Formats: sequence, structure tokens, C-alpha cells
Amino acid sequence: MSLAKLIDPDTIAIVGVSTRKAAFQVGGRAIFDHLRLHGYDRRIDLVTREKAVIDGVETITSLSELSHVPDCVVVSVPADDVYATVEEALGLGVRAFMVITGGFSESGEEGATKQARLAALVRRHGAAMLGPNTTGFVNLGRRVAMSSTSRITASLPRPGVVGLVVQSGALGSALMEEAERAGIGLSHVISTGNEAATGVADFVQFLTDDPATRAIALYVEGIRESSRLLAAARSAHAAGKPVVLYKAGRSEAGRRTAAGHTGALMGARGAYEAAVRQLGWVDVAAIEDLLPVAQYVATAGVTRSLGILTVSGGYGGCVADALESSGAVTLPSPAEATVARMRSDIPAFLSTRNPVDIAGTPFRRPEGFATCLDAFADDPAFDGIAVANTPIIPPWAEAVADAMLAAGRRTGKPISLVSPSDIFNGAQLGRLRQEGVPVFTRIDTFVAAVAGAATVDAARRAPSRLLREGRTGSEAPRLDGAPIPLSEAASKKVLKDRGLAFPREAFVPGADPAALLLAAREVGYPVTLKGMAAGVVHKSELGLVAVALPDAAALQARLATMLQSVETHALTLEGFLLAETVRPQAEVILGLGLDPEFGPTLTFGAGGIYTEIMRDVAVRLLPLDREEVAAMIRSCRISALLEGARGLPALDMEALIDLTIAVADLAPGLGEDFAGLELNPVGVGRAGEGAWILDATVFRMGALS
Amino acid sequence: MSLAKLIDPDTIAIVGVSTRKAAFQVGGRAIFDHLRLHGYDRRIDLVTREKAVIDGVETITSLSELSHVPDCVVVSVPADDVYATVEEALGLGVRAFMVITGGFSESGEEGATKQARLAALVRRHGAAMLGPNTTGFVNLGRRVAMSSTSRITASLPRPGVVGLVVQSGALGSALMEEAERAGIGLSHVISTGNEAATGVADFVQFLTDDPATRAIALYVEGIRESSRLLAAARSAHAAGKPVVLYKAGRSEAGRRTAAGHTGALMGARGAYEAAVRQLGWVDVAAIEDLLPVAQYVATAGVTRSLGILTVSGGYGGCVADALESSGAVTLPSPAEATVARMRSDIPAFLSTRNPVDIAGTPFRRPEGFATCLDAFADDPAFDGIAVANTPIIPPWAEAVADAMLAAGRRTGKPISLVSPSDIFNGAQLGRLRQEGVPVFTRIDTFVAAVAGAATVDAARRAPSRLLREGRTGSEAPRLDGAPIPLSEAASKKVLKDRGLAFPREAFVPGADPAALLLAAREVGYPVTLKGMAAGVVHKSELGLVAVALPDAAALQARLATMLQSVETHALTLEGFLLAETVRPQAEVILGLGLDPEFGPTLTFGAGGIYTEIMRDVAVRLLPLDREEVAAMIRSCRISALLEGARGLPALDMEALIDLTIAVADLAPGLGEDFAGLELNPVGVGRAGEGAWILDATVFRMGALS
Repeated sequence: MSLAKLIDPDTIAIVGVSTRKAAFQVGGRAIFDHLRLHGYDRRIDLVTREKAVIDGVETITSLSELSHVPDCVVVSVPADDVYATVEEALGLGVRAFMVITGGFSESGEEGATKQARLAALVRRHGAAMLGPNTTGFVNLGRRVAMSSTSRITASLPRPGVVGLVVQSGALGSALMEEAERAGIGLSHVISTGNEAATGVADFVQFLTDDPATRAIALYVEGIRESSRLLAAARSAHAAGKPVVLYKAGRSEAGRRTAAGHTGALMGARGAYEAAVRQLGWVDVAAIEDLLPVAQYVATAGVTRSLGILTVSGGYGGCVADALESSGAVTLPSPAEATVARMRSDIPAFLSTRNPVDIAGTPFRRPEGFATCLDAFADDPAFDGIAVANTPIIPPWAEAVADAMLAAGRRTGKPISLVSPSDIFNGAQLGRLRQEGVPVFTRIDTFVAAVAGAATVDAARRAPSRLLREGRTGSEAPRLDGAPIPLSEAASKKVLKDRGLAFPREAFVPGADPAALLLAAREVGYPVTLKGMAAGVVHKSELGLVAVALPDAAALQARLATMLQSVETHALTLEGFLLAETVRPQAEVILGLGLDPEFGPTLTFGAGGIYTEIMRDVAVRLLPLDREEVAAMIRSCRISALLEGARGLPALDMEALIDLTIAVADLAPGLGEDFAGLELNPVGVGRAGEGAWILDATVFRMGALS
Repeated sequence: MSLAKLIDPDTIAIVGVSTRKAAFQVGGRAIFDHLRLHGYDRRIDLVTREKAVIDGVETITSLSELSHVPDCVVVSVPADDVYATVEEALGLGVRAFMVITGGFSESGEEGATKQARLAALVRRHGAAMLGPNTTGFVNLGRRVAMSSTSRITASLPRPGVVGLVVQSGALGSALMEEAERAGIGLSHVISTGNEAATGVADFVQFLTDDPATRAIALYVEGIRESSRLLAAARSAHAAGKPVVLYKAGRSEAGRRTAAGHTGALMGARGAYEAAVRQLGWVDVAAIEDLLPVAQYVATAGVTRSLGILTVSGGYGGCVADALESSGAVTLPSPAEATVARMRSDIPAFLSTRNPVDIAGTPFRRPEGFATCLDAFADDPAFDGIAVANTPIIPPWAEAVADAMLAAGRRTGKPISLVSPSDIFNGAQLGRLRQEGVPVFTRIDTFVAAVAGAATVDAARRAPSRLLREGRTGSEAPRLDGAPIPLSEAASKKVLKDRGLAFPREAFVPGADPAALLLAAREVGYPVTLKGMAAGVVHKSELGLVAVALPDAAALQARLATMLQSVETHALTLEGFLLAETVRPQAEVILGLGLDPEFGPTLTFGAGGIYTEIMRDVAVRLLPLDREEVAAMIRSCRISALLEGARGLPALDMEALIDLTIAVADLAPGLGEDFAGLELNPVGVGRAGEGAWILDATVFRMGALS
């Protein structure tokens, strides 16, 4: 399936075009009008109920009247007629469709059935279909405004390098509006509609292959076939095209994606956030930041150390605050030579730490600002510059723009303008944007952009195992049931059968020294001995617990004292428990889950009673390599305890990482009805002692009651 | 000191005015030009070096030539001449000054000395002085543009109800720019400069008393005299004027404001955030949100349940996501009757849960949108409405604006427009703003505004003890030294002397049953007995610990078993420790600190090794009442453990609250050199058992080395 004929057709046929004149056209007629309005000058045929002439085009009443096969057919007939129309066109050889008609899966069960039938038909022929229920797309570089949205009746954003895919037509219109306001150029705007046969993943792949597109911006509500999206994401990564996205449903508190505590801990967005991290995607928290961030990562390089030049210590401080909170860049002080060069134009008392407040003095000389900016841009301490809140009066704004363009060309460093103002200096802002200089009117948008570039850079330098190798194992979980926990014994058996070890233990009834010595040898020294007596809860207080007995002699000696205590306290002895000596110094949780959108996940976090209280947890998609597992553990606060907090000894991080990898490696082999695994607590001993699974639950997918 | 003569003078004299013509005027000449430009039509006298005529005004060369006492004197002479000028004017009876000259405390030590001398002079006469080193102020309602900023050379924002005080002149200019762009009206813009004699607190008080001002917006870098600001904040609260602020230095990681772990835990902004919470202030995280949020809380009522009406399910969902994350409002579904009223205009398949996506259909009839909005606004489920992303084409935008104005007037509910668009519908947005309808072009700004109104409402309904009673105890800490910890014994003595209790204990050497029984009676049953033997670390394992012995008989029985164990294991007995039985089920930290800006603070959080690992901590200013202490504890995640997590028993919350209040009550009486108190861990037993200070450190301010 190729999307080229859909997105850049040389011949279009629109089926279902109103012949009436109306103030606001809708449907096929709107698409025809928009195509013409925005300069599509290739062939368009119109299929109407009765012959007519619309805007100079003689219409036909059936596709069969055509003597050629149109590259793309736009379908705007009633829902019940869509199937027949598409079937006829397929018969004529058409392989690209756009169906704007609604009344399919979005309208209920009946519509969903209709849609499934239509999708099967289209798929059977290997055709591409945007929609149904789509507002269409705009291919800005090729002037194909094949969209019904009234938004474009007036104007379009300018052509550019950001390709936008949205799962909401109206939101796409709003984003075009924002692009126009902010002077951001777009390559494509594609509204995916119901995605019956062709979806987000296909369009990400299309934009990856599209030479005009340098970054891909997505508004995503739900992901249907994550393995295809993952493949497209890997292609985009390989092609060096960053993906920036806003995911709707940020606060869907109710959604559970894994069984047990793991599910509660992951939260609604755990798997999504893991995907973002591991695919090198840039997640934006505000929809308004989607396009500015995409534009920035498409065009500006990474900035690791940023210099802020400002005429307002206050505003520059706000920029520095926000950058520092993000952790995306460092803000080193300028070199002494830099300060010396600027000193001719700035008062001696002004701070020359970063941000550097040059105040108003440089503007008293025409070239004063350029002197300061040049010194700043030449400083090797900075690989990017932010010019923050420069004067707004037109002649000064022009001097600032001149200096920024010159310094940017000369040094090749990204030099951004962060300016709360766009009233008086609008013309210069427009000029800077036209020349490709990043311009921001909100500090948080600038910070999101710089942080986004850092994210893209990090994924390029150290791609995750998921990016390198793709996904292994299950595609997606069965969702036709509810997770049911197995018993402790059954859970342990599942895990032991797959090679996971548990602490060894043996129970010896009565008080038989010979049997105890034999069992101890099997369990292994140092051994822990516990006297089990009826009704005794606090064994330690009665001297019935001995930890880490080194050998048989020590075992016999403690056995004697315990029997004495049993006698003294008149207890009813049941026997003795021998166990491998485990002295967990910290408890963690390890879990495996299956996210409905993103597939198998691994969860790590603080364990025991702190699991739910502290919600100190990290989630990743599988597969993971050793470095990623170590970083995942270190991302949790509990890792401070593992590394030896407050003078406590360091714990066995290596053993914990080994165990975590062993658990992750289980994922592909746990069978079709696997629904989750939770090891809680996992005890971690001191360095060299080990890590032990102290409790385990496996969940299987059971039938819904 | 009254600021009326400064901010609304009937006669002004400007000392230090350039007679030269220049493209951009600075200093006193800029102020004269701006006053005239923006319609100040009362008397202005100009003092120049030599007699001249400027813009029709015959200048004088000395204030003494005046036959009247000007209400306010603007000083724009070199720094070294400022003192003499102010002194002369004071002699003439002037009691209000604005000093725009720089070169004072901002320029180093010499300037600071100059400034202190000037401040003392002004204070001695009970005069008011804005500055030095200020860009001045604009009183918009009275057309007093007494500001040197080039920003106002072109135009001013419109007069309105938000009073703005900034500790950065250039930032004030940027915010005026934003106000103009967003159509937000301002009552005053005051740039405080160096605040030698008159500072933020005075201007907050002024705006509280100013009838034109309905909300106060602050940009604050540092707070010098927090008790005066606190008093002003209490006045503003009493007058029903919300305070909205952005505090610079959001990420100053290095700043320590209290000794020990408490200091590390509080972080740079702990005390500030406590002040915000307890004073009912609205803290904005983005400087760009300062004015829109202030405008909203000044004019819109509180919304507890919000209905979102949108033409874009996607955009409406983004609004809902952001609102849900904030927790500020609920989003109930509309009543069935409401849906029924809307059904005539919206397709049957569209979701009628909140947000309600009405899509484009209502716009096919001229009154279609109004029908939907009226139904929505009448629904008692909603006490506020957001109209999100309505169509942008002018005739539709006009219908939307008409409907919003009508519904707002009819129902009295706040009806906000949240629209990413301001290109095509700019005229209607302007009209809505002019009529007082809140208009937002960013979702996060709208959410910050709604959350801000909720904050203001909460403080009105349940003001904190700090708001009700003001601060008790120390004004501010001594900052002339470094905090030094006292020994455990000295610390305990300080606290015992002030009535805090510690677990009782007694050591009885050797193995003397009579002495043990006597000591046990003093410590109190149930008693804990520990055998102390040379070199024994794990007492429990040797049976040398007995917890909660109920009476003398039990004590004697356990003593016998312990002596037997001593013999069996050939230990060297040192004696027995008797202690009050404490069985802490959770460990917390309690701390007292002294913040340099905000005074005495109380810190509560997870204790023991989790203190630093989990950073699960709450900070409040003192005083606090019982409800506030309980809410403070509940705000920490550790409270889940206190309330009985995962089937564990509930712990003694009442005893913990009692102890916390007792600690808080210590604050006023800890003496001048008190520098901090840290109780860590504090153990909390099961409900009814108690809470116990298990370790304590008092810090005193020592001399700096």
C-alpha cells in the first residue's frame, strides 16, 4: 500500500458533490472548493446525482463514465452507499480513497459493523483509505487542500517542514490556526478519522519517507496497532526525523493496564510514558506546544549549555528558572573574555553571570547589541543562545533581528528569541521566523523545545534496545477477560519451571537432630533456624529464631537452647523450619504487565508496604538491556537505599539487576493467557549477599463473569 | 506614610530633566514626556540645570523657586546629588518621592551605603519613596504615567481592575505588553526598584485600599520584611482582594533555609509555598499566566463543577485532561433534560458526557449554538461553563459571542471562552474581553485561572490560623552565623525543660531483682526489659529482649530466662535496661526551622531512613491550628501508613497531632539563637498507644568561622 496516490494525486474524483450554492459548503463540495481555492491545478472530476456544471467543471453521474483511473477517489455519499461506491472504484482500478462520510464506528454498533465490512474490502485490494469520518488532509507543499474543514476557507499556514497527524479533525483545524499565528510552516496536515484501514502508523511512515517533512507532530487519542506504530517509530528514528506528540487522556485515572499493584502503580500513562522514553519521542504536556516544539526539533540542533542574554534581569531569571527546573541544559557563566568584550556597552555593576542582563545601555549605540551578542555567541561555553525580552521599539527590534541573523549564520549555533512581546515588533518576529530563527512568546514553550531537542539527541546517541531491535514477544494482551491470580504455590511453580529461584527452605517436624542436620545440608549454611510452637507469634522474644548459623555445631547448640526455652515456657513444639539465610535490607517490587496499547511492560519500584504508599515506581516496555535496567532502578528514589543511604552499607545492586533481567526475559514465554506477574517483595541483601523473591503472584486471563 | 500623594499627585516636580531633543528620551525627560503623552493634565514643574522652555513649560533651576509644595518630587539627578535633592525637598515639606537614579545598592557596597543614608533620611521624615533605581509607575485610571520605560512611548494597556507590582522594571514593561495583547485592564503598574524605604508590602497595602483595584498581581524576587507583607496580605484577604504572584528563583537548588535534614527537605521554596497556601495566595508557575489569572480571580466567581461545551472532541478533551490533573473542579455529566434540549441541534451519535462535543451541526441554524449553550448554562450541575474551540469564521464567532454574553447575563455563571484561535475571530474576542468575559488562548492558563479562583474561595471559606491571627513569635532568624547541633543530651534537656516528654527508661547494673522491680514501677508497666551483655549486638536472637511485660511477676519470670541464656551462652552481663514499652509502627520526622523570608516553619514527613529517600514532606508557617496540622499530615504519603495501609492497623494519629502541636507551640519560646529543631525519628504506635520522640537535635546559631 502506497500513500503517495492518496496524498499527492494527479487526478482526483469526488463522489457526492452538492450542486447548490451555499454560504458554507460542506462535504465533497467543500473539498472541491478548497482544492481550487488553494491552487490545486491538476484534474478533478465531480460525480453528482444529476449532470451539472460546477465552477466550470462538467460533472458526471457515475465513476464508470471516466476514461481514466483516478489516483484518488473522495467519497462523500450517505453511509449506506459508501461500500458500493468504493467497490465500484476498486473494480475500476482505484487504490486510494478518502471517505469523509460519518456514521461508521463513531456512531455505534451498527456503524462499526458497516466499517469493518468496508475495511475488509479495502484491505483485500491492498488499497489505502483515509477515514471514514475524516475531515481530510492538506498537502501544503503540493497545494492539495483535500480537506472539508471550514477553517481553510480563508487561508492556509505556510508550507514548511513539520508534518502533522491528528486523530481529531477539529483539533487539526485549531493547530493550523496556531501554525498560522506563530509562523510555523507545515508539510502536511492529516486528520485520520476512524482509521478503518489506514491509520496513524501508516501516516508516520509516510511522513518518514516524505522529503519535505523534517519532524512529525502527532495528536493521539488512542493507539490501535502498536507494533505497526513501533515499526514506523523505528523508521522515523533511523531517518533522523523526530516525533513530537500530545497524547490525550492525560488524567484517565480509572484506566487499569496491568493486574495487581503493578497495575495501580503504572497508572493510566505508565506504558505511554515508557514508550515516549524508549522511542526517543518528545511528549508535550500542552497541546499548544506541539507545533512550536516540533518546529524547533526539526530545525535547531541540540543545546547542552545555553547562554541567556537579556535586557531584563527579571525576565531572564524566569527563563533560567524554567530551564533549570527542566534539567535539559546547563547555564554556565560566560568566559572573562566575553564579559570584557561586552563591557564597552554594559554598565559595570550589572551581573555577568548567566543570564547576563545587558539592560538598556547597548541600545544607545546602533551596533551595541550586536557587540554583546557576538561576544556571547563566540563564547565556547555556550552551544546555544537565548535572546530574552529585547526591546520592543521597532528600530531596536530591527537591530536585534539583524544581529541575531548575523550571529546565527556566523557561528551556526541555534540562537532563539524568547520575547513576551509581539505587538510592536511583530514585523521583526515575522522576519526572524521566515529566516528560520526560533521565536517563542512563552517561556515554557521555549523550555519544552530545548528539552525536546535534548531528548531527540539522547535517543540518537544512545538508542534503547527497543529502538535497536524492535519488540520481542507478545503483540498485545487478550482483553476478553479479567486477570485472575494463581495461588502462591501455583505462581511459584510457573516461575520455578522457567528457571527463577526462591530461597530454599525445609520443615522438619518434631525435634529430630539427625533429620535437622540432613535438611540443613540441603538448604545450605549459613542456615536460619526457627522453632515452630503452637500459638507463638513473636518467636524472637522467646529465643526461637537463630539467623545465619555457620555450621552443624552452631545448629546443634542453638537447637539445645531452643528446646530449653520450649520447656521453660511450656510450649507445644511443632517442629523446626530451616531456611537459607536471607537478610533483606530493602524490599522492592518487580512486575510484568501487558499494556493494551503498548504490549509487555516491566515495573520496578519500592516494595512491601511502601509500594502503594510511596508510588516510587518506574515502568518500561520490553525488551531492555542491562544499562537500561540499571538506569530504571536508579530513577526510583528507593535506589538511594540500594546504593547505601545515610551511612548504611550498599546493597546487592548487581544481583537485583540480574534478577530484573531474568524476570524481563520471562515475558515472551509466559503463554497466551498470561495477564501479569508480581514479585513483591523482592528482598535485596548487602553487596554480594543476593536478592530474593519473597512472594510471587502470577495472573492469568480468566473469562469475564 | 501615605502613598496617595506619590501615586496620584496633583502637582509633580521633576528634578533632572534633559533639555536636549533626542529620538528616545531617558530619565526625568522621559517621565515628563510620558506624563504628557498619556493625558496627565495637572501641574508639572521641571527643574533643569539652566532655565529653558520644554514643551511649553518654563523650567526652574531649583525646587526652592516653587511657591507651592509639590505632592511628589521625581528625582533624576546623578547618584551623588540625590541625597541633597531629597533633603532640600523634605525641607520644603515634600513627603513623596520617586527616585529613578541608579547606582545605589544594586551597584555594590558603596552604593548600598549611599542608599542606607538616603533611606534613613526619608524614614526620619515619615516620607514615601519609590526607588531608587526604579522605572516608576503608571496609575492607569488617573492617567499618571510616571514611568521612564520606553515601552509606554507607543501606548498603554487599558485601565482595569488588576494592580501590578513588580520587582523588575523591564519585566513590568513585558507584562504591560502582555496585558495589551490579551486585553487585560490594569489599575496600576508599580516597579519597586531598590525598595530603600517603601517596598512591596506598602504597595500591596496601597492596592488593598485602592478602590479601582480588585486583584493584586505581584512579581517577586525577594521578600525583605515578611511581617509587613504578611500584614498587608491579611488586609488584602480581609478586603476580599485576591493576591496572585510569580516568585522568581523557582529552582534555586542551593539555598538552605533550615538546619539538618529539615533544611534539605524543605528545599528552596518550602517556606514560600507554605506562605502561598496559608495566605490564600495564588502562585502561578509561568510568568505569562500572572495577569490572566489575576484578571480572572478579580472578576469571575469560583467554579466547583464545570461544563465544557466544544465543537472539537479533541480540544475539549485536552481542556478536560488539564482540569482533571489540576483537581480544581469536577466535570459532571449534564442532566438528561439538558441533553434533550440540545438534541434538536446535535447528532444523536455524539457523546453527551462532559465535555459535550456539539460538532458543527448547531451552526447550520443561526440560533443553534445559543440553544445548546442556554441548555448547558441552565443546568444546575454546572456553576461555570467553558466554551472551548468554537468556530472561527466571523459570522459564527459573532453568534457564539452573542450567545455567551446573553447566557452569562441571564445565569450569572462565569462563562469562559477557551479558544486556540485569535486570527479570524479577533474582533469577537476583543468584544468579549471588553464585556468582561474571560477569554483564554491557552488551556493551561485557563486551568490556572479556575484553580486560582478555587484557591481564593478556599481561603475565604476556611482561612488559616496565620490569616486569622497573624504571626506569633520570632520575626526572622539571625543570619549572622551557622547552625550548630547540640548534643543529644543537651537537646533533650532543652525540650524536656519546655515540657516535651521522651520515653522513660532506667538502667539497673548487675542482676538485682529488687532494684529492677523498683525501677520498673518508676518506668511504668507494661515495661520492656533488655539484658545488656558485653559484645552482644543481636539481643533478640539470644532471648535478651522482652517487650511489654505486664507486671512484676512477668518481669521476674523473664529475668530468670535471661539469666539462664547469659549462662548458656557464657556472656558477661552488664545489667538490665528497663524502658517504657514503645512499639512504633511508623517513623516520622518533625522539625522546626526559621526561614529568612517567612520566619518560623514546621516540617512534617516520613522519618528514619525514608526521610531523605522519599522526600515525602510538608512545610507550613506558624501558627497552625489542629485542623491544619491534621491536613498537613494527611498531605504526606506516609499518612496512608498512619491511617492503616494494606490491612495494617490504624496508628495513633491523635497522639501524633498532639505532639506536632506541642512542637509547633515551642517555636516562640526557643530564644534568639534558636536555629532549628529536628525530631527524627518520631515513632507512632497503634491507635491509643501513643507517639514517641526517639531522637532529637536542637540547633543553635553559632558564629561564622
